[in-house]
Amino acid sequence: MTEIERLIQLLARLPGLGPRSARRAALHLIRNKGSLLEPLARAMTDAAASIRICSICGNVDTVDPCGICTDRKRDGSVICVVEQVNDLWALERTASFKGRYHVLGGVLSALDGIGPEDISIGALVARAAPDKGVKEVILATNLTVDGQTTAHYITERLAPAGIKVSRLAHGVPVGGELDYLDDGTLAAALAARQDLRS
Amino acid sequence: MTEIERLIQLLARLPGLGPRSARRAALHLIRNKGSLLEPLARAMTDAAASIRICSICGNVDTVDPCGICTDRKRDGSVICVVEQVNDLWALERTASFKGRYHVLGGVLSALDGIGPEDISIGALVARAAPDKGVKEVILATNLTVDGQTTAHYITERLAPAGIKVSRLAHGVPVGGELDYLDDGTLAAALAARQDLRS
Repeated sequence: MTEIERLIQLLARLPGLGPRSARRAALHLIRNKGSLLEPLARAMTDAAASIRICSICGNVDTVDPCGICTDRKRDGSVICVVEQVNDLWALERTASFKGRYHVLGGVLSALDGIGPEDISIGALVARAAPDKGVKEVILATNLTVDGQTTAHYITERLAPAGIKVSRLAHGVPVGGELDYLDDGTLAAALAARQDLRS
Repeated sequence: MTEIERLIQLLARLPGLGPRSARRAALHLIRNKGSLLEPLARAMTDAAASIRICSICGNVDTVDPCGICTDRKRDGSVICVVEQVNDLWALERTASFKGRYHVLGGVLSALDGIGPEDISIGALVARAAPDKGVKEVILATNLTVDGQTTAHYITERLAPAGIKVSRLAHGVPVGGELDYLDDGTLAAALAARQDLRS
């Protein structure tokens, strides 16, 4: 196999790229050797050498424990549970959460044979204890069947600890138009309607 | 900027990946460090060090001139003109062309300000001469307005050489259904209909 074929084969394993787009990406890299291929090769080598998975929360960072877990300005009494690191990034971009995180690294899935011991639930239960100063766990798993099953399971597991367990609000997205919204979201928004005078 | 941010920023410059899919790709790479991130970093470093652009035809290979230009079993009297290297790869996958190629590296585009001197037309005219043993030039530019304008321009430029200039046939794709075909293709297929008894 030539260097080009090997490059295409590996690029095709990235999510979002198929064989055809991998070939396009490889050619784009080759055409922009100095400005893209070489910097990207270096960035990947650097990332492979320096990136760590946080042993506390599962976040990715260049230090372990991660910057969020060691940031004294963040509120250690609230833990937000997410499926994956990109969900954590999405919440961080809102700049509206100042607690800590817990990355499950997946969701429970009977279909895919993923049980509680396959994702980071035991570590969450160990972290989320009142004697460790944790007062609330916010479940921010996705609103999929597996995500909600996982949230339900975690709620059960955390019940003995006696701490507050909440979930993200469901409803109409900001900027969303009712006519374009799916029925499930609209029904959830109606059920969770808020009293304007309270 | 951290190593992760730098990786995401560079990945987002690949065709087919936006900011969100670049973040997903970066996480996928980090999660599969040993099986994907490190091999891909190596493959990119190797590619940057070894890949050459063929000075004759514009193909990418690890040698210059490329394997196709130096392959004595290929017919040097026919040159197939393509826009980009991925078009060359597409034709090579058919295993039905045994001549040589010429990669233009783009198409004429008044809108983008790309003129004949910006793409590899001068080199093609220099190659495609009867005294160099070339008998036919096959124009395989895309069936876009710019691709066809380029083909027309090349036909004019090659006229003085007095060699045969052909283009790919237009028509119904193999496996194509008439009802799903655009009108232009159908009209072209009708105009270029072939006599079954000839």
